[in-house]
Amino acid sequence: MSANKTPPLPGIRGVLAPVVTPFKNDLEPDADAFLEHCQWLLRNEVSLAVFGTNSEATSLSLDERIGLTEHLLEAGVPARRLMPGTGCCALPDTVRLTRHAVQAGAAGVLVLPPFYYKGVSDEGLFRYFSEVIERVADDRLRMYLYHFPAMSAVPLSLTLIERLLARYPGIVAGMKDSTGDWASARAYIEAFGKDGFDVFPGSELLLLEGMRAGAAGCISATANVNPDGIYAVYNQWDADGADALNRKMSEIRKTFQRHPMIAAMKHVIAQHRGQPSWRNVRPPLTALSSTAASELAQQLEKIDYQWSRT
Amino acid sequence: MSANKTPPLPGIRGVLAPVVTPFKNDLEPDADAFLEHCQWLLRNEVSLAVFGTNSEATSLSLDERIGLTEHLLEAGVPARRLMPGTGCCALPDTVRLTRHAVQAGAAGVLVLPPFYYKGVSDEGLFRYFSEVIERVADDRLRMYLYHFPAMSAVPLSLTLIERLLARYPGIVAGMKDSTGDWASARAYIEAFGKDGFDVFPGSELLLLEGMRAGAAGCISATANVNPDGIYAVYNQWDADGADALNRKMSEIRKTFQRHPMIAAMKHVIAQHRGQPSWRNVRPPLTALSSTAASELAQQLEKIDYQWSRT
Repeated sequence: MSANKTPPLPGIRGVLAPVVTPFKNDLEPDADAFLEHCQWLLRNEVSLAVFGTNSEATSLSLDERIGLTEHLLEAGVPARRLMPGTGCCALPDTVRLTRHAVQAGAAGVLVLPPFYYKGVSDEGLFRYFSEVIERVADDRLRMYLYHFPAMSAVPLSLTLIERLLARYPGIVAGMKDSTGDWASARAYIEAFGKDGFDVFPGSELLLLEGMRAGAAGCISATANVNPDGIYAVYNQWDADGADALNRKMSEIRKTFQRHPMIAAMKHVIAQHRGQPSWRNVRPPLTALSSTAASELAQQLEKIDYQWSRT
Repeated sequence: MSANKTPPLPGIRGVLAPVVTPFKNDLEPDADAFLEHCQWLLRNEVSLAVFGTNSEATSLSLDERIGLTEHLLEAGVPARRLMPGTGCCALPDTVRLTRHAVQAGAAGVLVLPPFYYKGVSDEGLFRYFSEVIERVADDRLRMYLYHFPAMSAVPLSLTLIERLLARYPGIVAGMKDSTGDWASARAYIEAFGKDGFDVFPGSELLLLEGMRAGAAGCISATANVNPDGIYAVYNQWDADGADALNRKMSEIRKTFQRHPMIAAMKHVIAQHRGQPSWRNVRPPLTALSSTAASELAQQLEKIDYQWSRT
């Protein structure tokens, strides 16, 4: 698998943002602000992993997720730039969201394992993903597995992925590895990359190393606030200036990482868009404290952080 | 608070079963088998904490949960014997299920904290539970908090409960403590029992000690397979024979605990009802292996386990 190979559609590569979800002051999703942010990300060459962890996806009802997706599509957002998160605890919920995404023409879906029960077996997880695939029953499905053990507390083993790939080649299309650990992402690339299985590290801190080893890009929170910086590294990873671009990009990531990420990104978006309601999060999350907001502002100024004007 | 005091309705005390949910071979809920099991539990003096962890509640869609509840009510199951689990990750989902339960006249609701995000603050959790209460906006609501850190990975601190109780006295009615740790349950009883806050240990192994200290009963998985045995201890905790009843009851619990609990209970129910589909579980869980089933059968025979014929 060449790192720059364009896959036949459906399927997707490059930089994706788990798009943060704006809420009005009554905590209802703000569909227009969401669309505006998505369009800005697309202009900056970033595709849309809507309804990921940083989107507060698990804080949204199924109808809210479907409604927001429809709003994007009706406004002309190309479905081939979408990789909605569709993994829920309940099989019928995951099937419903996955079917909706596939029928809408989404490039792929990013699927968390069911995350309530802990210590479940690979057999149980295999059955879960199998049931989703069998029930959706659509050749256009491209399923990306979402490995985020620190949050889901349900890891996806190499053995499980090997078994899924053998049973559903082409359908099981790749994964997001959110461990933040290069050894982990590399192990998945080495094990399955040759089978056309696309691995996306969950942070741009692993993007450059990843591209050199055959990753498909990255799906990273901070693509919500530094899309052009991350895309530059993706686009020029094998050019001379890649290391300098990587240093600048990594500085920004590390600055946001010092704070609760979702709240920090929403705070910065609120500032740059002049729309204070962007600060809202749904509980159990909390908005950025004013102390943290001041610290973040100082830290960003120090590294000369710039909001993309595109 | 006297341990035997009957609370004004709504509210509930005694032994409750997190009712296991039967699935047909196509994994659809079997509403009639569910009703039959619920009626048997009620005849054995056990109330119904439907949609708990052992009910595979998080593996059910909201519509499935509401449909099963309606099925019970239409068949004449008294709402005052119900404590449905209504806690989801997404605020609108928890509000929807809680409102449905309250409007149906349920004695109470058992509410998991939102369990996807880890390491959330007490402030975020307080806001979450507050929003549920404010949005349901019904004086009949009796909310029991569900503390199960091993599964939810989101603990409910004494500080959080103190704050909720101060803000919503009467509405915040109690909790289930599924730590399995007597020191934990006792701490909650000692801190809040005097305020009419009912603590239910999550296992009958803590029932006798609990009743002596002022617990409200217990909400325990194995009430699905030993309702009469557990009720006997609840009913006679201060009588002479309590210790002997407790020993027998505990032996049964410990036997089931040696196996994956949900699968083991469903296996035994399938045998005693002569209905093999009771063995079905939804993924990511798996049914009891034949090896484990044989072991369990031998272990239960050894302790002379009897299915209640009531």
